[in-house]
Amino acid sequence: MPDTLPSSTDENPLLAFARWVAETLPDWPDQAWSRALDAFIDIVAVMIPGADEPAVQTVLSAVERWGSGGVTVVGHDTPLSPPHAALVNGTAAHALDFDDNFDPAKAHATAVLAPALIALAEDRDMTGRALLDAYIVGLQIMGRIGQGLNPFHRERGWHATATVGTVGCAAGCARLLGLDGQRAAHAISLATSMAGGFMSQFGTMTKPLHAGLAAEGGVRAALFAEAGMTAGADTLHGKTGMGTLMVGPDLEALRAAMRGRSEHGQTMSFKTRDIGKPLHILEYGLKVKRFPNCGSVHRALDGLLSLRATHGFTADDVTEIRVRAPAAHLRNLMYERPVDPMQAKFSLEYNLAVGLRDGTVGLDAFLPDNIARQDASDLIPLVKKDYVEKLESEFDTEVHVHLRDGRTVSTNIHMPVGSSALPLNRGQLWEKFEGCVQSRLDKRRASAVRDALCALEQNGPVRGLTRYLAS
Amino acid sequence: MPDTLPSSTDENPLLAFARWVAETLPDWPDQAWSRALDAFIDIVAVMIPGADEPAVQTVLSAVERWGSGGVTVVGHDTPLSPPHAALVNGTAAHALDFDDNFDPAKAHATAVLAPALIALAEDRDMTGRALLDAYIVGLQIMGRIGQGLNPFHRERGWHATATVGTVGCAAGCARLLGLDGQRAAHAISLATSMAGGFMSQFGTMTKPLHAGLAAEGGVRAALFAEAGMTAGADTLHGKTGMGTLMVGPDLEALRAAMRGRSEHGQTMSFKTRDIGKPLHILEYGLKVKRFPNCGSVHRALDGLLSLRATHGFTADDVTEIRVRAPAAHLRNLMYERPVDPMQAKFSLEYNLAVGLRDGTVGLDAFLPDNIARQDASDLIPLVKKDYVEKLESEFDTEVHVHLRDGRTVSTNIHMPVGSSALPLNRGQLWEKFEGCVQSRLDKRRASAVRDALCALEQNGPVRGLTRYLAS
Repeated sequence: MPDTLPSSTDENPLLAFARWVAETLPDWPDQAWSRALDAFIDIVAVMIPGADEPAVQTVLSAVERWGSGGVTVVGHDTPLSPPHAALVNGTAAHALDFDDNFDPAKAHATAVLAPALIALAEDRDMTGRALLDAYIVGLQIMGRIGQGLNPFHRERGWHATATVGTVGCAAGCARLLGLDGQRAAHAISLATSMAGGFMSQFGTMTKPLHAGLAAEGGVRAALFAEAGMTAGADTLHGKTGMGTLMVGPDLEALRAAMRGRSEHGQTMSFKTRDIGKPLHILEYGLKVKRFPNCGSVHRALDGLLSLRATHGFTADDVTEIRVRAPAAHLRNLMYERPVDPMQAKFSLEYNLAVGLRDGTVGLDAFLPDNIARQDASDLIPLVKKDYVEKLESEFDTEVHVHLRDGRTVSTNIHMPVGSSALPLNRGQLWEKFEGCVQSRLDKRRASAVRDALCALEQNGPVRGLTRYLAS
Repeated sequence: MPDTLPSSTDENPLLAFARWVAETLPDWPDQAWSRALDAFIDIVAVMIPGADEPAVQTVLSAVERWGSGGVTVVGHDTPLSPPHAALVNGTAAHALDFDDNFDPAKAHATAVLAPALIALAEDRDMTGRALLDAYIVGLQIMGRIGQGLNPFHRERGWHATATVGTVGCAAGCARLLGLDGQRAAHAISLATSMAGGFMSQFGTMTKPLHAGLAAEGGVRAALFAEAGMTAGADTLHGKTGMGTLMVGPDLEALRAAMRGRSEHGQTMSFKTRDIGKPLHILEYGLKVKRFPNCGSVHRALDGLLSLRATHGFTADDVTEIRVRAPAAHLRNLMYERPVDPMQAKFSLEYNLAVGLRDGTVGLDAFLPDNIARQDASDLIPLVKKDYVEKLESEFDTEVHVHLRDGRTVSTNIHMPVGSSALPLNRGQLWEKFEGCVQSRLDKRRASAVRDALCALEQNGPVRGLTRYLAS
């Protein structure tokens, strides 16, 4: 890499991204600031119960022997160094698979970015606007990198949360630390050497660990670059860069296949100009989960709950719930009668039964003792599935509820609540927050966390938030 | 991954490797123990001056803020945790590019394995036989993984030291910790999620950092698995495993192309039986560098020094040194009159000039102030190059020395000293050791390090060595 950033960075996406990270002004539209805060509300909500999960406790039991530090570990009383806190908190953020998704990156973006940025901001006693600004910038670069690799990077089996996540996170951390363009370039490049992880880790504790490793990798890459480490200039677009090695030697053919097309913004090419336009947090947004189960359940569950609310029926009034949905969705939901929490998350029948009975599906639906609850099991035979061989974007999910009085009420859902087309509003986010924290935090503490989150938008201190997140 | 290792692991290389790591007996031939000790002598030699390199000092300046521990950092007075010590010492081991290479893995094997194993062994107060055994086992698995991916993994641009290195290192660490087959499998699989790094980092501080990251990754993966983390069973050979994603979607075609062939043991297929046979440390061995310069210099330099020793001429007797060598070698050596240490390492002329004058080429030849030394510069015009368009394996390097008295003396070299065909003997290793440490350690300390290294073969304590390696 040249000793200083060249005056034209137009041919090299790494240098163009780095320059933008270092130099773009934080003059974001109000809605961008607000969406960034939404992301932090959602991730703090899911991290609090996530911190109790076995994967997190296991990682922590190893990491806490590697030295202490000044940064809060959620739900734990011994602070760690910034990279280690990012590792543990990132794992907690993804442990319940209840955190958001971000399309161009095909990554669980906030589970990576937020723990990393909070760790650095707490360590250096920074404030909310810097935190939210770095989030907006990091998300943008994560999206730009995803656009250069996807849809094929993810489709072939790379876990983009781990790969694209690490590199985008380094960009966010570089922004927060105020690195110049040259050091920001080294940070982003260094992060490619810490980016790994396959989808063959799904279903194991290593899946949530990937979010933690990506958060930690971003922190480490930025701190190494700040200290003066150098890295290559061609690690994104070069012949032996991420764009080739993490897609395949058929890159050019794939790129040609995507010419003129865009799959959720993914074009298989790296942008080198107008890096900040459009702004991804507004253009693509985040997909926030309203329910802690497989995303393929969400449209049907939205439909059932909306019918239930509109028509006021209860479980006793229903004789059948017929779901017509894209076959790919229904094939993801292969457990008619789940026997454990992991299966329950992938059961259409179980989730609709709980939704019909309770009016919502919360985290408690996936406590081991609740899976076999009789009042839900009884309703499972009511659910009927019609597999429709069309893509998600081509066919809405239809829900038809037959009632004992002979009526049938129906609705169809194109995009679930929480998707970028229909984002959760602040009220719905706080509802999710309450559901997540109620069994962990008393009312006073929950309220303090809420206040500290809100204060971030008014540039309150990040330590004002983290002081309430330890055990 | 199943809860316990299945009784037949024949179809899955990950499980087969893990079972072998956990269960094979440490009944190695004497020569294997001896070769393992050779590797430790060589790596300790190069780590000592390597620790002073800017890349190492820079990494250390960041890492030492992340908590302290009980493991020695070479040349430094504050001990760190095992993963952090492995990171810094691994970077030191590779910083001078004077460390060994290992063919089936296409990796700088010992720069990864030794710092990781020493860190864990020091932390748990283990002894030399366990250390050497874990090295033999880790090297074997590193080779087995390399065989499954190479030659194409490395050829396409992955830095195998970083990728294959991390995963093989986790196997060695699992062996040292005595993990059972199931946990060893988790360790190896976990390591695939910490394996990354491209050749586009070459020429920057991130290149030696790759060895450090691989050493640290191996330590962390093994410690996480020991703590109970789980990982996927298909991360080596599966559809979304390392064998596919870190080679390319044309894997089957490449594998077919290698059928019946073997490039230094690389066959593009994972072995699932007889994991320990043949033993790689004996079958392929290590390529140990006798001189701290580009490997493409080594055959010509060996030839010149051997002629010089045999015929007893001095620089004043020589009128021409003609080198006929494979063009690929000579093209690597593009600096006729180098101006800095990095160029000097890639100059045939400079290295032969120093060799002719001094009878060897040591680390001091690459001190910035020595590059322009007059007595070597004067000899540069004597060197003539004949480019021969053949492969390294097809054409020996010929050295013809014309003498002032009219005679011409010649020799040809097929494999350089230090290669597996012609390994450095113990005497040559100690000579390299002295050259490396003389300006850093006083005689008493150097002698103590030598004794402690030798004691490892008699099962001396690893702390007996590390106590002399701090500053």
